[in-house]
Amino acid sequence: MVEEDTQVEHEADIEEDEEDGYSLSSKQLTAILYAVDTGDRDKLVELMEPLHAADIADLLEQVNAFDRRRLILLYGAEFDGEILSELDEGIREEVIHVLRPEVLAEAVRELDSDDVVDLVEDLEDDAQEAILSTLEDADRVAVEQSLSYPEFSAGRLMQREVVMGPEHWTVGQAIDFMRGAEELPEDFYHMVLIDPKMHPIGHVTLGKILGAPRSQPLKELLEPGFRTFHVEESESDVAYAFNQYHMISAPVVDEDERVVGVITIDDAMNVLDEEHEEDIMRLAGVGEGSLADRVYETVKQRIPWLGVNLVTAILASLVIAQFEDTISQFVALAVLMPIVASMGGNAGTQALTVAVRAIATRDLTGANVWRVIRREVLVGLANGIVFAILMAIVGMVWFGSPALGGVIAAAMVINLVVAGLAGIGIPVVLERIGVDPALASGAFVTTVTDVVGFFAFLGLAGIILL
Amino acid sequence: MVEEDTQVEHEADIEEDEEDGYSLSSKQLTAILYAVDTGDRDKLVELMEPLHAADIADLLEQVNAFDRRRLILLYGAEFDGEILSELDEGIREEVIHVLRPEVLAEAVRELDSDDVVDLVEDLEDDAQEAILSTLEDADRVAVEQSLSYPEFSAGRLMQREVVMGPEHWTVGQAIDFMRGAEELPEDFYHMVLIDPKMHPIGHVTLGKILGAPRSQPLKELLEPGFRTFHVEESESDVAYAFNQYHMISAPVVDEDERVVGVITIDDAMNVLDEEHEEDIMRLAGVGEGSLADRVYETVKQRIPWLGVNLVTAILASLVIAQFEDTISQFVALAVLMPIVASMGGNAGTQALTVAVRAIATRDLTGANVWRVIRREVLVGLANGIVFAILMAIVGMVWFGSPALGGVIAAAMVINLVVAGLAGIGIPVVLERIGVDPALASGAFVTTVTDVVGFFAFLGLAGIILL
Repeated sequence: MVEEDTQVEHEADIEEDEEDGYSLSSKQLTAILYAVDTGDRDKLVELMEPLHAADIADLLEQVNAFDRRRLILLYGAEFDGEILSELDEGIREEVIHVLRPEVLAEAVRELDSDDVVDLVEDLEDDAQEAILSTLEDADRVAVEQSLSYPEFSAGRLMQREVVMGPEHWTVGQAIDFMRGAEELPEDFYHMVLIDPKMHPIGHVTLGKILGAPRSQPLKELLEPGFRTFHVEESESDVAYAFNQYHMISAPVVDEDERVVGVITIDDAMNVLDEEHEEDIMRLAGVGEGSLADRVYETVKQRIPWLGVNLVTAILASLVIAQFEDTISQFVALAVLMPIVASMGGNAGTQALTVAVRAIATRDLTGANVWRVIRREVLVGLANGIVFAILMAIVGMVWFGSPALGGVIAAAMVINLVVAGLAGIGIPVVLERIGVDPALASGAFVTTVTDVVGFFAFLGLAGIILL
Repeated sequence: MVEEDTQVEHEADIEEDEEDGYSLSSKQLTAILYAVDTGDRDKLVELMEPLHAADIADLLEQVNAFDRRRLILLYGAEFDGEILSELDEGIREEVIHVLRPEVLAEAVRELDSDDVVDLVEDLEDDAQEAILSTLEDADRVAVEQSLSYPEFSAGRLMQREVVMGPEHWTVGQAIDFMRGAEELPEDFYHMVLIDPKMHPIGHVTLGKILGAPRSQPLKELLEPGFRTFHVEESESDVAYAFNQYHMISAPVVDEDERVVGVITIDDAMNVLDEEHEEDIMRLAGVGEGSLADRVYETVKQRIPWLGVNLVTAILASLVIAQFEDTISQFVALAVLMPIVASMGGNAGTQALTVAVRAIATRDLTGANVWRVIRREVLVGLANGIVFAILMAIVGMVWFGSPALGGVIAAAMVINLVVAGLAGIGIPVVLERIGVDPALASGAFVTTVTDVVGFFAFLGLAGIILL
């Protein structure tokens, strides 16, 4: 009871907040679009000024391409580099082409090196060149160096500005160094201690430095559980480690184990967010879509999965076609057969989603895979029996045929057991052979449950009813 | 081409890493279970010592209940409070009951107040009391105070230890205060400045404090975009703000706007992670399941959704039943009809997933909802035409009937347009009336596409073919 109550409260909270979100943005948006319509630059700047770059980016994503263009041109030199960073990749390129070159140059110059890398890595060559050419030589070299690391690697994710000190320093020396530094990074949470060869030997939180006497050696304040990442390590591993070990920042080392950069938690959070998005979209067969995409792009993203589904649906139809005679003698079979397939598809999707998610969070491992498979089969069996009984009753009441009830009950048990097995087995196998389980499992699992569902139901009907 | 290549690389990376994950954990697990089997406590402690609490929690989740119990009892006093914090809620209670009271007391005493709150809030009363009674009076009062805030609120999420200073302080005074403090929080990233009434007026990053001369007033170093949360604000809003505005920590204020705690990014990341999990699980109708759940619990979680699906499947069957005569004259209809329904279900799920995700990330708002609905309908129309042509060809080749090809083509267009409309419209409406779109949309959307698919196909067939 307690749980249910609080659940309802929670939902109510969300609703209320999102209602606020709606009305706020509608009102602001109307005012902003009115300023754009009337070409009132002062009013536009006044309305946009209190907004965070992330909110301005959302705003640009939510208006149509025509308004977006007019707004950006009117906003002019106020356009901030961070807005570009926050923009959805789908319309980033479009916005870059709308910006006047001098505005673009100014906007990019404000960004940290890792943000520039994130900005340019997915752009077409000419848009990428347009941005890189606006950078000063040193920054340009830094960005190009980062781009030389593999995509989706720690090297692409890291920022190059690291606060480091020799391992023998005291708290006082560290503070004096930071006070004397010409420029410190915008966000940093540790001082990394290095040996004379630039190898990291640990790091100290800024809080510990601030809480300790000046004379204390930094070495005595090292954080336990210090971890580093290799430049070529995948960003997916980085995100996993940050999440699993509650890390806040960690140095990145090159092949000689020398510190070359640092990754902070906001970068890791971003990766985690993107991976979640990818999983949920891939499970539904949606690809890389975003709300800002146009009809043509969206159609292109969705057709492949619908194509796969068409093939599997035809496969299922071929199974049905084998039983045309049976169906023509018992039309009730045509009425009931989608139920068996649909229940199997749903049970399979349940098992599949749990498996895909558990693989993504690395909770499903060699250690427990057999136990989980056994569990899914037993769950399929139990649910199969429950719904077999229900359907047997429905079949008997509706069509007055106990035999038909028995057939659909048996087919239900078979299909739900197979659904459990396929739902867990297919993603595990795909993962082992190096295919993203979220990408391909859905098609395979529903094919299996459709084919088995129709075959079991119509096949048993052919044997028992005729 | 470039995109495809890198995609493959990315997949290969993941595979390699997860292979490593597998082998590591299998080997370690075998050694650990062997130590448990032989009752070799020293060996067990030696094997567990290098593991992070989060990894030990994963390990406990992955072994079966029998091994889990033996392992915990053998591990004894080494059992760390953090392991409890990291444990999946599904088996936390079980583990608490296995732990000897004095081990449990010791384990909990090490935790921060917000971790204790997180630990006890979902426990049964007796398990909660068992933990609270081990705390010292002051800690117990703090935890009970936090528990008095609503579930899923900022007040539950925050830690109560805040590093604060009066607004007139200089950098030097801040440093002296922190050096003199008896105990500083384990993780903190800002000093919060308050006025004499404890109202927050801004905060300064530790990095800025370390980089500035002692004489500089802290007021000159305030971070832009300072935000606070109210104790009763929902944790979902908190997580959204941290993600949207790249925040690292923020104070929490009570009804009198006084600082009562602070939320840090790791807490927000946790909430975000849980919300993702909830979305993906609810979309598949899986409820609150975890891999560690037993068969009985899993069956209980999944039956409701399968039950809903049964009702909707029967609804679709009732539609088919209206056309029994038509089917008995044209059995080919029974063969082809699942294709129309299946394509509609998939197209609907695609639109639905995009909509649910966009609502969760607050990208779908009043500002763009009509444009997105129009887009989904057009996408449905375009995909409908593509697959209508394909199916017309299949229908003609397979059954040699141009009329049948025309019927399935027309039904396909109708169903895919309806799928687009239902896929976006249903979650938007549910969200407006305060129901989580992820929870309920799937059932509604597939019902619509099944019913419309069968009705359009069989209805048109009845008119045109007979």
